Amino acid sequence: MTIDLQRFRDEITRPDVDVEKAARQRQLVLTKPAGALGRLEELAAWVAATQGLCPPRPIERARVVIFAGDHGVAADGVSAYPPEVTAQMVLNFLSGGAAVNALARTVGATVRVVDMAVAVDLDGVPDELTRYKVRNGSGNITREDALTRDEADQAFLAGIAIADEEVDAGADLLIPGDMGIGNTTPAAALIGLLSSRDAGAVTGRGTGLDDEGWMRKAAAVRDAMRRGRDLKADQLALLATVGGADFAAMTGFLLQAAVRRTPVILDGLVSGACAMVAHRIAYRSAKWWQAGHRSVEPAHEYVLARLQLEPLLDYQLRLGEGTGALLALPLVRAAQATLADMATFDEAGVTDRPDDAEDAGDARDGEGTPDVEKS
Amino acid sequence: MTIDLQRFRDEITRPDVDVEKAARQRQLVLTKPAGALGRLEELAAWVAATQGLCPPRPIERARVVIFAGDHGVAADGVSAYPPEVTAQMVLNFLSGGAAVNALARTVGATVRVVDMAVAVDLDGVPDELTRYKVRNGSGNITREDALTRDEADQAFLAGIAIADEEVDAGADLLIPGDMGIGNTTPAAALIGLLSSRDAGAVTGRGTGLDDEGWMRKAAAVRDAMRRGRDLKADQLALLATVGGADFAAMTGFLLQAAVRRTPVILDGLVSGACAMVAHRIAYRSAKWWQAGHRSVEPAHEYVLARLQLEPLLDYQLRLGEGTGALLALPLVRAAQATLADMATFDEAGVTDRPDDAEDAGDARDGEGTPDVEKS
Repeated sequence: MTIDLQRFRDEITRPDVDVEKAARQRQLVLTKPAGALGRLEELAAWVAATQGLCPPRPIERARVVIFAGDHGVAADGVSAYPPEVTAQMVLNFLSGGAAVNALARTVGATVRVVDMAVAVDLDGVPDELTRYKVRNGSGNITREDALTRDEADQAFLAGIAIADEEVDAGADLLIPGDMGIGNTTPAAALIGLLSSRDAGAVTGRGTGLDDEGWMRKAAAVRDAMRRGRDLKADQLALLATVGGADFAAMTGFLLQAAVRRTPVILDGLVSGACAMVAHRIAYRSAKWWQAGHRSVEPAHEYVLARLQLEPLLDYQLRLGEGTGALLALPLVRAAQATLADMATFDEAGVTDRPDDAEDAGDARDGEGTPDVEKS
Repeated sequence: MTIDLQRFRDEITRPDVDVEKAARQRQLVLTKPAGALGRLEELAAWVAATQGLCPPRPIERARVVIFAGDHGVAADGVSAYPPEVTAQMVLNFLSGGAAVNALARTVGATVRVVDMAVAVDLDGVPDELTRYKVRNGSGNITREDALTRDEADQAFLAGIAIADEEVDAGADLLIPGDMGIGNTTPAAALIGLLSSRDAGAVTGRGTGLDDEGWMRKAAAVRDAMRRGRDLKADQLALLATVGGADFAAMTGFLLQAAVRRTPVILDGLVSGACAMVAHRIAYRSAKWWQAGHRSVEPAHEYVLARLQLEPLLDYQLRLGEGTGALLALPLVRAAQATLADMATFDEAGVTDRPDDAEDAGDARDGEGTPDVEKS
């Protein structure tokens, strides 16, 4: 099996720039001082551009997909938690007790969990959960490949299929979530390789490592980076060597979401690592993403710098699961609402100030008109 | 009429510290690494403490009250907009076309508008809107008092009455909103006086002043501050001299909300100025508040520093109306949801790491237990 990555470079184009322009022009005639909604105005223009529609539609079917997988490297003591927690947390997701569930309920999103490589067979769970499972645990990347090349391809294709399923089912915004004890180790290794930083710079404390644990983890990241150092140009080999089934799937998911012109809110370190790989495959994909939050993990800065994303929130989260992205979802919805639902100066009979009126006048002469909907 | 401000110092106590402690302890046994929800954990503990209940209840009736009023100083060219916009925007609020309306709909809050001192008589509007009106426009604070002392008392009492009405009607979170062309001038003067900063340091560009406008405004702030400089210890005289009816009402509203043990999300400069006055009257009131956002107005920093509040968002907003506070409401709700709706390690059968388990064990020996609800 050979996967053609070139297709993503060809098929992924930018969100609609004309609509983005129309959105900025519409901001000038809404009943508020020009620019007074600050960053919300930029965000609203992005939503409109991803939809190809100004004013934009409400985001009604936001969907989190959690890619769960164990990592052999966890046996090296790189996490504060034992590996069995991965499977336990998958069951917690299914019963609705995790942070991602609580946040999804309150912000109005739904959660899907996919077992890509949990170490144990999960019994009595919906087939939906395990349909794409590639293997029981990805290999220990300090000394063996996470996956065979075939497994990497299989996981990557699973991610594509999952994105298609979600978009076909009506999802209008996607959030990649992660669960896997030890998963910030491959994430750090991938980010280190793709940003040319050394292991010490990209290794963080994950769920709460002490100093000794951090040193073990930094050594593991260093060993993994050594094994992956010549593979930047072959991203599927990179994912097979120092990633894992969950990483390969999430990378395919992010790329296919962009192919399907669906906006994405990234979460923290793991989705950031996959986003960096996806960006390397097709750089325009990043235009379809917002960074939900700034993770406390040090390597996250390198992701944000490379993708040129400014996080929507800085709340010192370090949980994963998609939680940081979910927390930012109401801000994206708020941006959409202001652009779509506010009255214009004309509609409301409110006096605009002279210089704003001029700006708006100039804008009206432009290609896109503020009050015309494009679809 | 003499208003006893001492009563606020006596009646306003802190949110429940025992419940806050119980909330922090509960965070340790929820299915996440200790501290992994970062700032949300602090926020959740605050919500619990204001309710006196752990786990806290969902915030179901969040209410914005917009205090509208004109300011004579607008005639001095201190705003980029003409004064008639105040009344026009009040009508826009009533018909649901303003930013505050769009945001309230999307985050799940309702909006009330109160005409405290709009310059014109508004015809054909609900009595509810104008019931507390004190006068047509507050005076030009550069050369005359904004209000007589009686008018200030009347407006202050109106704010108290409005807070009582809202809490009695079931509001479980209040947001003060503002509307008034020129209102950042009295706000800057109040903040300058209470933070001992000079006019240049507290004067911002409001809705978008150019350099000449800024100089006119700084001169107006300076003149107003000169008139109010000996009044810090008599806060109602201060509000009468350099504030306005909307400011006096909002100050009473904030104090009474704290008396009624109701959490508040502050908005930007105007609510910040009133919060500073209220804090001077009863310093514990600030414990009932969160700062919704960091305004681009320079004087806002002095408010935040005095009240020791760290804004929930930094989105470069400069609109007022309560918009920055509304934008932060979903974050407060998200915090509540994680603390109340997540499963514990025991409930979910998830293995806690040994050191976390110890921490939680210590906590269980403490005064409040993590899983016991206090009311």
